[in-house]
Amino acid sequence: MRYSPLLTDLYELTMLAGYLDQGMHERPAAFDLFFRHNPFHGGYAVFAGLDTALSYLEELSFNDEELGYLESLNIFKPAFLSYLSNFSFRGSITAPPEGTVVFGREPLLTVEGGLAEAQFVETALLNIINFQTLAATKAARIKLAAGDATVLEFGLRRAQGPDGGLSGARAAYIGGVRSTSNVLAGMRYGIPVRGTHAHSWIMAFPDELSAFRCYAKEFPDSCILLIDTYDTLKCGLPNALIVARELKEQGHDLVGVRIDSGDLAYLSRQVRAAFDEAGFTKVKIVASNELDENVIDSMRREGSRIDIYGVGTRLATCAGEGGGALGGVYKLVLIDGEPKLKLTSDLAKATLPGRKKVLRAVAPDGSFILDLIALQDEEILPGTVVFDPANPVQHVRIPEKARLVDLRRKVMEKGKRCVPTPDLESCADLAAEQLKLLPEGSLRLVNPHTYKVSISSGVNTLRLKLMNRIQNKYRS
Amino acid sequence: MRYSPLLTDLYELTMLAGYLDQGMHERPAAFDLFFRHNPFHGGYAVFAGLDTALSYLEELSFNDEELGYLESLNIFKPAFLSYLSNFSFRGSITAPPEGTVVFGREPLLTVEGGLAEAQFVETALLNIINFQTLAATKAARIKLAAGDATVLEFGLRRAQGPDGGLSGARAAYIGGVRSTSNVLAGMRYGIPVRGTHAHSWIMAFPDELSAFRCYAKEFPDSCILLIDTYDTLKCGLPNALIVARELKEQGHDLVGVRIDSGDLAYLSRQVRAAFDEAGFTKVKIVASNELDENVIDSMRREGSRIDIYGVGTRLATCAGEGGGALGGVYKLVLIDGEPKLKLTSDLAKATLPGRKKVLRAVAPDGSFILDLIALQDEEILPGTVVFDPANPVQHVRIPEKARLVDLRRKVMEKGKRCVPTPDLESCADLAAEQLKLLPEGSLRLVNPHTYKVSISSGVNTLRLKLMNRIQNKYRS
Repeated sequence: MRYSPLLTDLYELTMLAGYLDQGMHERPAAFDLFFRHNPFHGGYAVFAGLDTALSYLEELSFNDEELGYLESLNIFKPAFLSYLSNFSFRGSITAPPEGTVVFGREPLLTVEGGLAEAQFVETALLNIINFQTLAATKAARIKLAAGDATVLEFGLRRAQGPDGGLSGARAAYIGGVRSTSNVLAGMRYGIPVRGTHAHSWIMAFPDELSAFRCYAKEFPDSCILLIDTYDTLKCGLPNALIVARELKEQGHDLVGVRIDSGDLAYLSRQVRAAFDEAGFTKVKIVASNELDENVIDSMRREGSRIDIYGVGTRLATCAGEGGGALGGVYKLVLIDGEPKLKLTSDLAKATLPGRKKVLRAVAPDGSFILDLIALQDEEILPGTVVFDPANPVQHVRIPEKARLVDLRRKVMEKGKRCVPTPDLESCADLAAEQLKLLPEGSLRLVNPHTYKVSISSGVNTLRLKLMNRIQNKYRS
Repeated sequence: MRYSPLLTDLYELTMLAGYLDQGMHERPAAFDLFFRHNPFHGGYAVFAGLDTALSYLEELSFNDEELGYLESLNIFKPAFLSYLSNFSFRGSITAPPEGTVVFGREPLLTVEGGLAEAQFVETALLNIINFQTLAATKAARIKLAAGDATVLEFGLRRAQGPDGGLSGARAAYIGGVRSTSNVLAGMRYGIPVRGTHAHSWIMAFPDELSAFRCYAKEFPDSCILLIDTYDTLKCGLPNALIVARELKEQGHDLVGVRIDSGDLAYLSRQVRAAFDEAGFTKVKIVASNELDENVIDSMRREGSRIDIYGVGTRLATCAGEGGGALGGVYKLVLIDGEPKLKLTSDLAKATLPGRKKVLRAVAPDGSFILDLIALQDEEILPGTVVFDPANPVQHVRIPEKARLVDLRRKVMEKGKRCVPTPDLESCADLAAEQLKLLPEGSLRLVNPHTYKVSISSGVNTLRLKLMNRIQNKYRS
């Protein structure tokens, strides 16, 4: 699927026109894409969207319709439109693999190239990485809350547009929600698809039992019956038991029943007891209705008997603290070899200048101790002292026994992918594995432990030097 | 742009397979698409997405790749796949024009056709209408809060995927936000595009003044300078004043300055005073940074001097009460001429059965009195008694002087559009006009007046009859 290069903010184009006119467009530059705070007031984020972003970059070019539209705006000179007609992205991208657990302030993508090309891709990269990373993180929270139960994503109808449902399902898979109702996501990304029937199926028949029987006849080996259309306990449950017995007589097993309204925790216990008593201990209970990690967590604590959670709206739209958006930003950190800083009145919000690497200190048992943002060429060894980015007086020492792992690698050179693209399953496996290696409190849904992200002495010193320089220049 | 027919939930396909096998697929059916509660706990919604939905319906068909994928799932019979290879939507759609102000419980789309085709389109229609109606409503709230000030949408980088930004910009235009930074939305929908430069433009130059000068030279007649990179009042403002004077000497006018951080209301007053004092009374002040209707409203009350609000994240993701989703649903209301009801334990949530119309009682001065959901063939005259859908004992009389307007019309027959598609500007004009005709309290941001949506005696009686029938059958 081609992304139009016009999927961008107009200011990227006006800036490009300016850089071209000034002869600045090919000056070597580097931008960092990062977010400042973990989404959902949580303890982590799951990085996703890289493969989508790389496809966008590889295919970036303007067609005649797009150039004609830009011409029609009457704000660009012919020389600029001619430049765009040959425009492509020939820069490099450094990034962690999708599924990596990441944290606020860490450079996710570093984009290096000519100033024009590296600037131009800002909007689309932010759009792709912001949303997929947010959705993967939401999915991880939901899957962790569900424990060993299966989670099914079926939020397409409430997603923010078709792509919200589609790339949302992709990201949710990476985060740990490994099946979807979205058939297009199944075809495009190979995600297992699941689904049964709606209330309207029941209502299209003269009564519930004939609707159940008919569905069981159609899909005798994959039958899940929706039992809450008229009355879950008085009507849906007894009818489902009749069908379970009939299927059994014919040599099939009812796979499950779904409850979509009422007190799901209470109903699940009643339904479980009835099926168990009738000898159908393997019939699964599917529950849905405005679920998210908090609802699932509290139902599980209460002893609900739900085997599969169907999660729709609140996963698809990444509902929760943060208003459905990851606040990723894209900042110039280097131009012509000169490190750059975006100053703000709040030290915690000032950017980290220069070309950097992200290291993870890992204990001998594999668990994660802290992350460190260091200058690209800085030597970092176990035992090194590192600093709090929000408070340069605070520092800690990397434990001597720690191993330091570089989280990122160059994934694109000269506009072409330079490493094989991992399949989606490997990305999901990576996320699941890394989430287990976090300090336990980091997974808490509310008020989690703050995983430490430090900056190196090199970054700390450079930042303070640039701050002083700017302040002397502009604020005196 | 083609929407894949696989942009759907798997259960639509499993149900279709069942209907086909049962010979039920061509039984005449009608479904209503509606939401129960106005979004954002607000007093209204702005209907949007219809044209997108009609394009989807007109082009609906399965290609070989899609059929091959469905075959690979090994759950569908060859006869069903063969049926799908000739599948298209040949039904009819009744709907209000986009831009119509609508309310909870009102049927927005009524889809009539064979049971299979009318059922199948559920997921995609909900996806399209839910999001665009939500985004149009959010935009209307923001535009109303901004009063006479201009609002610019620039949320693409934080939108939920590329389409969230694109169809979001379309819907925002209908709701009243009539310019965007999104260039693709400009090309595709003819929305005016706007934009200037980012902080990185400033940082790419040795100092702020040379960055400003260079931008002004590039775009002398459309120059808006971002003045908060280093220090808004000490640095950005004086430099912008220098450039304003230089532009003036060359016969041009500085269009404006943008403030993207800090106390926007305070800064806007300081900047306004400085420009006014220097004789630049027409320089506009643009403000941005996590704005929404509530922030804009409170800044205006405080006497801010902002001419243009740039609204990004919170508009693009429809942040606010409701978690970024409109809870639209799609319910079977008629099959084989028999009205159908989806029962729930809560009367307020039970659906309204049968083929219906939505009438608006309009006062002689044009203002809206109440809406009424009546049976399609029911005669409704001024003076008629109508009922509260959540409490059938509550009733009011339609004023004798009211005029009754049918809000909807048939827009598609036999799968083809049957009325001309209004342009986006007309839709936005319709919304703006209708919002003025609401009871004033309905526009309130918090705790608005509840606009009355009644049901007719015909709908009320039919609903109670069907409820009794179901309860006697299943709950005795």
